[in-house]
Amino acid sequence: MSCVFCKIVNGEIPSMKVYEDEYALVFMDIAKDVDGHMVAIPKKHVKNILDCDTETLEHLMAAVRKVSCHCVENCGYEGVNLLNASDESAGQSVPHFHIHIIPRKNGDNIDAWPAFQGAERETEEVYEKLRML
Amino acid sequence: MSCVFCKIVNGEIPSMKVYEDEYALVFMDIAKDVDGHMVAIPKKHVKNILDCDTETLEHLMAAVRKVSCHCVENCGYEGVNLLNASDESAGQSVPHFHIHIIPRKNGDNIDAWPAFQGAERETEEVYEKLRML
Repeated sequence: MSCVFCKIVNGEIPSMKVYEDEYALVFMDIAKDVDGHMVAIPKKHVKNILDCDTETLEHLMAAVRKVSCHCVENCGYEGVNLLNASDESAGQSVPHFHIHIIPRKNGDNIDAWPAFQGAERETEEVYEKLRML
Repeated sequence: MSCVFCKIVNGEIPSMKVYEDEYALVFMDIAKDVDGHMVAIPKKHVKNILDCDTETLEHLMAAVRKVSCHCVENCGYEGVNLLNASDESAGQSVPHFHIHIIPRKNGDNIDAWPAFQGAERETEEVYEKLRML
């Protein structure tokens, strides 16, 4: 079992745990890229949202919401950004489902929106490929 | 009822609908900032994850997962990025809960990670404020 996040779950690797319940864990990201950066994971090993069962997704999102509300209700923040990369093609680095939580407050000078370079194709053209209806 | 996304739900404002069920809707974002940009919303008006009830969050995430899997299984993508801003302080522009879905494939040259400028405070210091355990 070589997954870094599974090792954090079972205590083999130490972490700064913010929240924990039977199904999910939220701990501090140590990247030092932005203040308050946390990572929420399911304790069960799934790679990302693409292979995540309903129950695991529900438990993970409940934890994400609890921590988000805690930030606002108890810690002086006003909001959060949530970020996820599912698959290496999307920039996923650790192959264990994780959602980044960035607590936010007015005037914090954080820009949490990616610097997208503009679409190369017409929205309508991509829509015809993506639509399920 | 002046919420733009509520108007999209009830058809007052047209949209390119990718997926729809009783509880959630996924449609094309028209920002033209990145190819395939979609927005997933609950049909029920909640502002963001901070005021979202359990059932609404579960239905929304089920829709996000369905569309994410569809992108990979049927549309030639390999992954997705998921992005959310909850509260104006986090950059939320439309005050109706929405999760951005960006379909991804290897070599698409999209950078979906924000250009964070580095943390100003020690992780351990912020941790002491955030921890719930």
